[in-house]
Amino acid sequence: MTGHAHFLSFIRNGTAGYGIETPAGIVDLSARHGGRWPTLREVIADGALDTLATEASRLSADFPADGITRGIPVPAPEKIICVGVNYPDRNEEYRDGQAAQANPSLFVRFPRSFVGHEVPLTRPPESEQLDYEGEIALIVGKAGRRIAEADALSHVAAVSLANEGTIRDWVRHAKFNVTQGKNFEGTGSIGPWLIPFADESQIADITLETRVNGEVRQRDRTGRMIFSFRRIISYISTFTTLVPGDMILTGTPTGAGARLDPPVWLKPGDVVEVSAEGLGTLRNGVKDEIVND
Amino acid sequence: MTGHAHFLSFIRNGTAGYGIETPAGIVDLSARHGGRWPTLREVIADGALDTLATEASRLSADFPADGITRGIPVPAPEKIICVGVNYPDRNEEYRDGQAAQANPSLFVRFPRSFVGHEVPLTRPPESEQLDYEGEIALIVGKAGRRIAEADALSHVAAVSLANEGTIRDWVRHAKFNVTQGKNFEGTGSIGPWLIPFADESQIADITLETRVNGEVRQRDRTGRMIFSFRRIISYISTFTTLVPGDMILTGTPTGAGARLDPPVWLKPGDVVEVSAEGLGTLRNGVKDEIVND
Repeated sequence: MTGHAHFLSFIRNGTAGYGIETPAGIVDLSARHGGRWPTLREVIADGALDTLATEASRLSADFPADGITRGIPVPAPEKIICVGVNYPDRNEEYRDGQAAQANPSLFVRFPRSFVGHEVPLTRPPESEQLDYEGEIALIVGKAGRRIAEADALSHVAAVSLANEGTIRDWVRHAKFNVTQGKNFEGTGSIGPWLIPFADESQIADITLETRVNGEVRQRDRTGRMIFSFRRIISYISTFTTLVPGDMILTGTPTGAGARLDPPVWLKPGDVVEVSAEGLGTLRNGVKDEIVND
Repeated sequence: MTGHAHFLSFIRNGTAGYGIETPAGIVDLSARHGGRWPTLREVIADGALDTLATEASRLSADFPADGITRGIPVPAPEKIICVGVNYPDRNEEYRDGQAAQANPSLFVRFPRSFVGHEVPLTRPPESEQLDYEGEIALIVGKAGRRIAEADALSHVAAVSLANEGTIRDWVRHAKFNVTQGKNFEGTGSIGPWLIPFADESQIADITLETRVNGEVRQRDRTGRMIFSFRRIISYISTFTTLVPGDMILTGTPTGAGARLDPPVWLKPGDVVEVSAEGLGTLRNGVKDEIVND
């Protein structure tokens, strides 16, 4: 049952907390355990997700869900590493005449580039090219370096969804690297929940779908990923130690707005939804950023 | 005088601390102020570098410098952003037929990819292509977003040096982005000190030099940078909020080992030094990483 617990991090009355969402509302776990585990990162590091899920299943909701603002599931992870070009057809979208490479392309996003479920994505005044990328997010539970593929999933504590929202023209703003187009504040989202990882079947071949205003734009199955979850974890851990709370965003299927003809960008009023079997639906509106000079 | 204070972060007897290095040894400031400011990040955020420098100038050293292990100046910055290809001739080194771009190329390094002054750089078993890149590092003091170039240096708290050590063949291991080649643990270094920023003349046109076993390999002046310190700060802050403790590595002159003919990589026993006027000399040996299977 704990594989179905819906953990979340939130702000309520100006205070950060965490808990589990149920149909009746939020079970506030930070009120009960915040001294021992200040955030879900420490809960994960202590291997306590299952314990808290079991405890919460015996409790009533403390308050309704509509009074909270959701954050990303782990508020301050040490690192968020993203995989580029990991589903079929996407490699061909980059019509550069190169064959697919033997290793995953990786880039980094800062936590402040993401908002939580139901918080509008930010379209900055610098660009109209806000684009969506629906993805599966892995949350690391157990630290490791040079993790073998055979052991990789034992390092996963939980799973979530991400909209790896991108300012498309800033991805190629400079000669190399996509850092700036991937890090405008509040352009992406992670959520709606952190779902404890149960076993490989939970993620091995599930449908991942992105909709804009109800229209399906991306749809593929994780079983078709070019680099598997196991391979990604093993590869990243070759060069850096994965630690509890780290998030890995595992790539997006073909069909981002940049690839439509003509391209279609997100605009205020749009609603973007990313769904996957068993992981729920991550939903975000879009707002224009107001900059005061 | 505070512009010459030599702040550092260290481990001593298994405990993290910070202080100021003097010819007589280390003035331990964490022992005096660790409750209020746990690390130099909080000192910087509170604008207290000058106060502590003044205080330390009236104190005697608490212990000799040879009993400490130096860490990077800010142990856990929110982010470390690096600028690629920022000195003349380096752009031509990338013989790809493209003109220089209008905006700086940016990538991200995790703190764990760096060690402190006098700690050996790590050559991992995955590659023999450990390479040096000497750079000037800026440490952010005041938070800001969309900072104008005219105001940019008012957001700088301090300056340091970096060896932005790179596993060269892993920089192009995948189709896009340099993340993996720039993030092998312990391949780079930052230090030797965090020097409070005084005024623009301190960094505007100083000589930056990298030596390997005493032989000069890189040498240029910051006044020749393609993207100025002001421009880099302004540009990065367009998409993300710079916060106290953030570090910006501002690019390396031509002459990395990859560009010698034939290429020359760092190997155990080598000593790499990065020097700049007024910032001291960052010195690191090289060791092979021993991996236990």
